[in-house]
Amino acid sequence: MTPLYVLEMLGTAVLAISGVFAVARRGLDVVGALALGMVTALGGGTIRDLIIATAPFWIVDSNYLWAAAAGALLAFSLGGLIRSTQRAVLYLDGLGAALFAVAAVDKTLSLHFPESVAVLMGVLTGIGGGLIRDVLAGRPTLLMSRDIYVTPILLGCVTLVAWRHLAPDMPYSAAIAVAVIVGIRAFAIHRHLEMPLWLTHEPGHDK
Amino acid sequence: MTPLYVLEMLGTAVLAISGVFAVARRGLDVVGALALGMVTALGGGTIRDLIIATAPFWIVDSNYLWAAAAGALLAFSLGGLIRSTQRAVLYLDGLGAALFAVAAVDKTLSLHFPESVAVLMGVLTGIGGGLIRDVLAGRPTLLMSRDIYVTPILLGCVTLVAWRHLAPDMPYSAAIAVAVIVGIRAFAIHRHLEMPLWLTHEPGHDK
Amino acid sequence: MTPLYVLEMLGTAVLAISGVFAVARRGLDVVGALALGMVTALGGGTIRDLIIATAPFWIVDSNYLWAAAAGALLAFSLGGLIRSTQRAVLYLDGLGAALFAVAAVDKTLSLHFPESVAVLMGVLTGIGGGLIRDVLAGRPTLLMSRDIYVTPILLGCVTLVAWRHLAPDMPYSAAIAVAVIVGIRAFAIHRHLEMPLWLTHEPGHDK
Repeated sequence: MTPLYVLEMLGTAVLAISGVFAVARRGLDVVGALALGMVTALGGGTIRDLIIATAPFWIVDSNYLWAAAAGALLAFSLGGLIRSTQRAVLYLDGLGAALFAVAAVDKTLSLHFPESVAVLMGVLTGIGGGLIRDVLAGRPTLLMSRDIYVTPILLGCVTLVAWRHLAPDMPYSAAIAVAVIVGIRAFAIHRHLEMPLWLTHEPGHDK
Repeated sequence: MTPLYVLEMLGTAVLAISGVFAVARRGLDVVGALALGMVTALGGGTIRDLIIATAPFWIVDSNYLWAAAAGALLAFSLGGLIRSTQRAVLYLDGLGAALFAVAAVDKTLSLHFPESVAVLMGVLTGIGGGLIRDVLAGRPTLLMSRDIYVTPILLGCVTLVAWRHLAPDMPYSAAIAVAVIVGIRAFAIHRHLEMPLWLTHEPGHDK
Repeated sequence: MTPLYVLEMLGTAVLAISGVFAVARRGLDVVGALALGMVTALGGGTIRDLIIATAPFWIVDSNYLWAAAAGALLAFSLGGLIRSTQRAVLYLDGLGAALFAVAAVDKTLSLHFPESVAVLMGVLTGIGGGLIRDVLAGRPTLLMSRDIYVTPILLGCVTLVAWRHLAPDMPYSAAIAVAVIVGIRAFAIHRHLEMPLWLTHEPGHDK
């Protein structure tokens, strides 16, 4: 077990935890929690694998399944602690999404897909699971909020693809891309930043 | 035409009927009914087939398409009868979902996927179509309710996989798994059972 | 660049524009607009390609990606003009959906799938992107409205498949099918037509 592998399993469990916590406020039984947690952790990567025509990652290595299920059940049983840890979960969720997005760029490029596709698969893998969870739970999706969530993932994926293009042998480029995403996201959480108004149409405006 | 084949076609039509009935209360035109009925009947199995990389079942045998379309149009034209038959449809829907889930476990195991994947594909096939229908119709999905719906399917799929593992030659194991799912589900419908509170986070609680 | 290719790129951009305009009223930042516009333009064809097991069209030719992104960003930056052009966008959206549906029937038939599958892929490609957009944006999907939107696409696809069956060498059959769809849709928009009541269950009726 390499450190990266341990980190990926932790990222999977953390995404499942954040998936359950995001929805628990609406009321949820244990089976619903299991389903929504697993969808959050595994959904984005599954869509990516279908699009790039490889076997879904959790079929190739079912440890991902168990990590997601364990995270979801842990989150359900820890329900009472959520309020005090909500902040920590936001940061961990940012780390999980960053790891997944960067791994997706890597995987897509290594299969010789165009660079634009690699960026798209990175973003889709980072946010896809959360989108499916929100749709199944009847919550507004993050696309309809002004959260700084998709933007750092997009920037990190573009940066990584650019580096791979310009300096293919640069070491640690994936780790740096994860750091870029987590850094911007953490800064946005810490400062309660939202997208600036000139990049936003307010609801009910002239359009 | 084997009895199983006839049963599968009936199951497809019944799922389409229950799909239309579930949504008709919100107002629906005939094309919407056709679309939502077919999605309910065919959606779960389609996602399963994409994930396990086989041709979608209704492409291999387009009788499934016609059975789903016929069920949807029948349900639309029988709209006025719904109130009196709503209970019957709940039971039939349970049977349809059970047949589809068990067939999915069989199909996934026969393609030599891991057992955990077979259970997941069983549950996904049993509930996937209904989830897509609810999302497209703007209804709360069954994951957000305390209905005893996913649980019997999960139990039936786990039971079947365990039997196949421990006693591969046991006859009728699929039929018994269907009976287990339908039995629990019918009992829950009959007694208006919901998931127990200790397995549920109520909305608005401390989490 | 053939005229058809230019038309397809325009159709892609127009679907992205109509996707952003449909949602902008609810408030949307630039990244959300980019995502929802691209999903509207590319979502239906992606599901079609997954089901018929070919590489997604925007991976084969990434110009589709750029056309969708350009349309989405254009629509976001033109927000203020929407009210005056809303009508024009409805017509253009009808044209885009018609082009996509007819191209999907062509593609599916050319891969020797059954004719019923070709019709289904045509309809799915024409409306799939809009459905995903509405679900992600929390809007009621077009399946729940009485709009004459799916019906002309269904009629056009059935007509095209019938022609291909009866008179395989008939020239311009695809162009005629596009004209049929656009004609009915434009007539419905112009006259504010809805599905007739006898083909509709009103909400809250006896079912």
